[in-house]
Amino acid sequence: MKYSPGRHFLQIPGPTNTPLPILAAVGKPTIDHRGPEFAELGLNVLKRIRSVFKTNRPVIIYPTSGSGAWEAALVNTLSPGDRILMFETGWFSTLWAKMTKALGLEPEIISGDWRSGVDAGVMEAHLRADKQHAIRAVAVVHNETSTGVASDIAAVRRAIDDAKHPALLLVDTISSLASIDYRHDEWGVDVTVGGSQKGLMLPPGLAFNAISEKAIEASKSAKLPRSFLGWDEMLASNASGFFPYTPSTNLLQGLKVALDLIEEEGLDEIFARHDRAALAIRRAAEQWGFEIQCRNPSQFSSSLTAVRLPEGYSADALRSEVLQRTNMSLGNGLGPLADRVFRIGHLGDFSTASMLGTLAAVELGLKARGIPYGRGGVDAAGDILLGNSSPIAESA
Amino acid sequence: MKYSPGRHFLQIPGPTNTPLPILAAVGKPTIDHRGPEFAELGLNVLKRIRSVFKTNRPVIIYPTSGSGAWEAALVNTLSPGDRILMFETGWFSTLWAKMTKALGLEPEIISGDWRSGVDAGVMEAHLRADKQHAIRAVAVVHNETSTGVASDIAAVRRAIDDAKHPALLLVDTISSLASIDYRHDEWGVDVTVGGSQKGLMLPPGLAFNAISEKAIEASKSAKLPRSFLGWDEMLASNASGFFPYTPSTNLLQGLKVALDLIEEEGLDEIFARHDRAALAIRRAAEQWGFEIQCRNPSQFSSSLTAVRLPEGYSADALRSEVLQRTNMSLGNGLGPLADRVFRIGHLGDFSTASMLGTLAAVELGLKARGIPYGRGGVDAAGDILLGNSSPIAESA
Amino acid sequence: MKYSPGRHFLQIPGPTNTPLPILAAVGKPTIDHRGPEFAELGLNVLKRIRSVFKTNRPVIIYPTSGSGAWEAALVNTLSPGDRILMFETGWFSTLWAKMTKALGLEPEIISGDWRSGVDAGVMEAHLRADKQHAIRAVAVVHNETSTGVASDIAAVRRAIDDAKHPALLLVDTISSLASIDYRHDEWGVDVTVGGSQKGLMLPPGLAFNAISEKAIEASKSAKLPRSFLGWDEMLASNASGFFPYTPSTNLLQGLKVALDLIEEEGLDEIFARHDRAALAIRRAAEQWGFEIQCRNPSQFSSSLTAVRLPEGYSADALRSEVLQRTNMSLGNGLGPLADRVFRIGHLGDFSTASMLGTLAAVELGLKARGIPYGRGGVDAAGDILLGNSSPIAESA
Amino acid sequence: MKYSPGRHFLQIPGPTNTPLPILAAVGKPTIDHRGPEFAELGLNVLKRIRSVFKTNRPVIIYPTSGSGAWEAALVNTLSPGDRILMFETGWFSTLWAKMTKALGLEPEIISGDWRSGVDAGVMEAHLRADKQHAIRAVAVVHNETSTGVASDIAAVRRAIDDAKHPALLLVDTISSLASIDYRHDEWGVDVTVGGSQKGLMLPPGLAFNAISEKAIEASKSAKLPRSFLGWDEMLASNASGFFPYTPSTNLLQGLKVALDLIEEEGLDEIFARHDRAALAIRRAAEQWGFEIQCRNPSQFSSSLTAVRLPEGYSADALRSEVLQRTNMSLGNGLGPLADRVFRIGHLGDFSTASMLGTLAAVELGLKARGIPYGRGGVDAAGDILLGNSSPIAESA
Repeated sequence: MKYSPGRHFLQIPGPTNTPLPILAAVGKPTIDHRGPEFAELGLNVLKRIRSVFKTNRPVIIYPTSGSGAWEAALVNTLSPGDRILMFETGWFSTLWAKMTKALGLEPEIISGDWRSGVDAGVMEAHLRADKQHAIRAVAVVHNETSTGVASDIAAVRRAIDDAKHPALLLVDTISSLASIDYRHDEWGVDVTVGGSQKGLMLPPGLAFNAISEKAIEASKSAKLPRSFLGWDEMLASNASGFFPYTPSTNLLQGLKVALDLIEEEGLDEIFARHDRAALAIRRAAEQWGFEIQCRNPSQFSSSLTAVRLPEGYSADALRSEVLQRTNMSLGNGLGPLADRVFRIGHLGDFSTASMLGTLAAVELGLKARGIPYGRGGVDAAGDILLGNSSPIAESA
Repeated sequence: MKYSPGRHFLQIPGPTNTPLPILAAVGKPTIDHRGPEFAELGLNVLKRIRSVFKTNRPVIIYPTSGSGAWEAALVNTLSPGDRILMFETGWFSTLWAKMTKALGLEPEIISGDWRSGVDAGVMEAHLRADKQHAIRAVAVVHNETSTGVASDIAAVRRAIDDAKHPALLLVDTISSLASIDYRHDEWGVDVTVGGSQKGLMLPPGLAFNAISEKAIEASKSAKLPRSFLGWDEMLASNASGFFPYTPSTNLLQGLKVALDLIEEEGLDEIFARHDRAALAIRRAAEQWGFEIQCRNPSQFSSSLTAVRLPEGYSADALRSEVLQRTNMSLGNGLGPLADRVFRIGHLGDFSTASMLGTLAAVELGLKARGIPYGRGGVDAAGDILLGNSSPIAESA
Repeated sequence: MKYSPGRHFLQIPGPTNTPLPILAAVGKPTIDHRGPEFAELGLNVLKRIRSVFKTNRPVIIYPTSGSGAWEAALVNTLSPGDRILMFETGWFSTLWAKMTKALGLEPEIISGDWRSGVDAGVMEAHLRADKQHAIRAVAVVHNETSTGVASDIAAVRRAIDDAKHPALLLVDTISSLASIDYRHDEWGVDVTVGGSQKGLMLPPGLAFNAISEKAIEASKSAKLPRSFLGWDEMLASNASGFFPYTPSTNLLQGLKVALDLIEEEGLDEIFARHDRAALAIRRAAEQWGFEIQCRNPSQFSSSLTAVRLPEGYSADALRSEVLQRTNMSLGNGLGPLADRVFRIGHLGDFSTASMLGTLAAVELGLKARGIPYGRGGVDAAGDILLGNSSPIAESA
Repeated sequence: MKYSPGRHFLQIPGPTNTPLPILAAVGKPTIDHRGPEFAELGLNVLKRIRSVFKTNRPVIIYPTSGSGAWEAALVNTLSPGDRILMFETGWFSTLWAKMTKALGLEPEIISGDWRSGVDAGVMEAHLRADKQHAIRAVAVVHNETSTGVASDIAAVRRAIDDAKHPALLLVDTISSLASIDYRHDEWGVDVTVGGSQKGLMLPPGLAFNAISEKAIEASKSAKLPRSFLGWDEMLASNASGFFPYTPSTNLLQGLKVALDLIEEEGLDEIFARHDRAALAIRRAAEQWGFEIQCRNPSQFSSSLTAVRLPEGYSADALRSEVLQRTNMSLGNGLGPLADRVFRIGHLGDFSTASMLGTLAAVELGLKARGIPYGRGGVDAAGDILLGNSSPIAESA
């Protein structure tokens, strides 16, 4: 493919722009996954990844993309025919539900409008209605990547507790982990599903299960067949820093550096940076006069924003125009949102300059396509990104 | 970990030494897996990988390590309780059998001595005895990585055919693919399992299923639950170069370069290079006075050699000594072979100089441990690696 | 140093943002500079670099930064005490003049206002006045990096010719080469000086002398002592692709890729891209209400723009603010322009998105420092960068 | 060029095999050479490089290959017509002498046999004979790269002192620095010349001048014209971590990592590693029955060995054979030694395994060319490399 001048702006909501120190670590020679150097690496990342999930218990690292960890959360805890309560927040919650069916589970899906997050009240009602506790698990997506809607997981926890329901709580944090505050232990989540290619700023290829004691217990009686994704051998091998089969060594090398960068910046500062970027982008969209897909301000995602184009304009044509003119990729609309929305990823490794460039490139695309929009989006975003209004630099 | 001067010699039988052009490609920025650049990449590697398996039909590329592709071969073709005929060639055939049990299949295992390959005659007898055709699949390891024994897959095919048995043939080529001649189509294999981190010279993280028409048919009625590893969505998406979920983009970038290197050298020359190296290593072992694990010369593996130490000497102490003194990793003995054998990987990216250095470093380790051995191993190996005895270079 | 999230925007007028394929080539292992692989590389780059200078004659590649090639142009063609006519366009012409003195030459400097390019008329008058032809060389800077002023080299050539003066013409193209049209042969330049770290998109460390037949002749009688920078041994060795001493092998590996990228995009398209970016930036500056340092529109540089801040505001404080807030470096004012101007590099590897991001980041800095400016700069620049107003992408 | 499987063995006496962490640092994006991140880098390497030269005074880092630093040592300290006493140790001392002539100095060359180092007694006699102190400098090569002969610099210092001669002492350590013990301050050297591409394990492109107080004094009255290589502006800029002109930023990034690796291993251990390797190689050569070029055991170089082939055999044909068959480069004979010797580099980044591989590859080449040699060289070398005969690893 012909080289396009300038660094590509990968502004899809994941995979995200990978920092060069991480790419360098991923590109180092593969080491012996049974040797002492690996043990040191394995113990290091297995321990430090916990803080990203805010858990004190083991996190399993799979050599798979996120879908593998979705499946792992199910096959390790459930048995054929088990009912599982889900909430239709958008494309990814729908795909996960589809997976449950393929695996022989029975999803009970609370339908949604693809513009809102999980309604904990409705969920609680479902759980209360389930007197026999036939529902074995509640599975929700923390941050719906197709719509830019973040759900309140603590509220889901409370709903389960208030309903006095014993269901396991499974949560997908693929596009929120390390970008939006998330608390596996505090929120009483049983299995948290994560991936490497979003807030962790790695290439795709690693996926995670953070697991509670209750989930471990459940795994002992869970009957879905499993081997590759089984937790028990993983946990046994991980104790000494090793894996039961060949892991994705090079991505683990990258994970170590990713954790270094995250620790250096600090999770709180990372979350604040994402919040600011998200607000800036919404201000720009407001200025443009476009609606955003997420209806409820309390559910705005801090890691991505789906922007709705006015009727009659093709979001895919806009994305293609932007790609060809500015060397920037935007996310497409999925399912019923195809061609209706474009999604801006603002997660992982980004700066104020790259966010401003992103918005300005969108504006240029709008102009090029003749889509009417209000001027001043970049400027409005700048006001937000400026944050603190007093100058940092000493006057010369 | 402290830096050890000199390039590490990764002489385990995989992951193998990764060529720098491949590492560079793996370390390039991740691209949009839904964009036009990716489509070009996807179509490219999906097409070209076929020739490595010598098949004209689709090869599925999973974002997993080899175990994922083992599981994929099973869950896509079989149903709970299905019988599967296997042959105990060593550690990896045993692990694969263990997986079949975990997934609810019933392996019928022909026991072996861990020094021999598949006995096609015995297998044929088993198949003939199975009048009801209860055996749904035969699953064998082409090149047993724990012992350095390569089995004759064409003979297995003939055994099935001669027994007029309809069982599927599933073959693991993880440590032989792109190192030892293998012919998916010609040998009538139904599912071939491969991995990225051996002869393909990539880091671990990609795994393969080459599949026959008959396997596709079988998948339509196979009842084992599957989603992440399901063939059908993969095949559908792959048609346009894409994947149903986020693939291991960066490893696919590396795969493209690996295929370039393989095509440049040519499979026949690659096989010849591996044959020469294997012979050279056996000659050295002979000189040392050590037995090799593989009993039958017709089954010597061309990609790795397991060498037996004399009674009373620890292979693990030798490996550790060699690692500390020479910055070289050797493979350990697995299962009952633990501490009894060490394994030399001679596959993927190696040169005559690196092979000679490998053998000389083993000799130095033997000397350091006080293990009695016959001198002259490196010299004998050199005679083999020399190959053609007439000089190449013009006299100056 | 702490990692700053997002790719750094290196918007100084060189070194410029290096494309990753070039960095990858620079980071490949060093090869034997006396071996056959090097010969192939050497011949390749020595031949292809000529087209960048638009010359059919040899170009010498030094393992030095640009100052080394400045010195080489002088010591190879001149003798102690020789007079050399120069034009004060700014900081770099002044430094070059200082070098001529240090080497024992006698510069005759036509003073300038640091806002204009070479005045060919004035130069011609000087040359006409030099009846004895004591002036042995005219040395000018094509694109003055300190001010963003480009001079008309064809006009300088005509001035020399019209004055019927035999002086050599030496031209510094360090910040114009491969960014602004330049024609060594057509314009009758005798020595063109170039560097790697600007339009060629390489790290610093290579420098160039393109040389005319007349310059070669002059070198035969030139008396300034020289060895390391001598042309003769270079030319002799280069004939077979080698160098008389160890060259900067890794940068030559990068140069090969740089030439690939340049050939792929095409010099004409590269120049047009730079022209558009420069115009866009000037439009933004106009919108802001700021003067640019270059007075004469016909001399606007297409590779960098020096922007003057209103009285009373510190350009260095602005640059520091921008660096800390947006992870972007801008060029400082040099000499008398210190703290008065900031310079935006828009050369080498940049995209529409990166240019827009650059301008938006400058605006954010202005806002943060409380420097009054007119809004709408990014928007105005977008209109220019849009270029062709009809959409590229097909409607979906 | 076609890819040759396996890592190339670059066993020429420099450029040497570059460790991957250094290559990664060299391949990082170029940073602003006027910004705060650079200042930190500059101060870091300018300070730490001193310990490699064992000096407490400034070391100048040029963006040139070694020849630039040769020239710098001369032009900063001497005046046209100055006499300079040199010793013909081989090709590189001869080239340096040639350079002195080109620069207008008058070398007085003590001829040598290309098999011995500097004879301090003869040198002393020359100095004593120079009653008028017309000789302004003594310039010697510490480790003659063309012959593998190391001279005793402390003895040269004593010779000058015993002769009560005020001449400056200039020493080339290009192929000894960071490989063989060297003490700029203790030995009273005035200018030490170094390069990046040998013991420092970097690509070529940086060169060094370590300078004494006396040299600085000399520079004040030295009359050779100089600008690019002038010390004064360098020293002034370096005080704050910057450079007077664009430095080789990326190589400085690599230098920082090189210094990390050197400090981690420790100079004493590095020297011991080189001594062992050199001894091992000489033992192998002895076993082969070949003479080595260095006559005097007290002058054996620890960083390279030039091996003489028996009469009638072409060293260049051997090198070419080895390159084609084993993917290893050896150094050629220079000047009168062309085709008579081959040189093995054993400096910088090497391991026991790579050294053994190197020797085994040479043996294979000898065999291929039909050059009669004694068997057992690798084995003998192994005994030396083994060093401590008691095993390191605990028994399992």
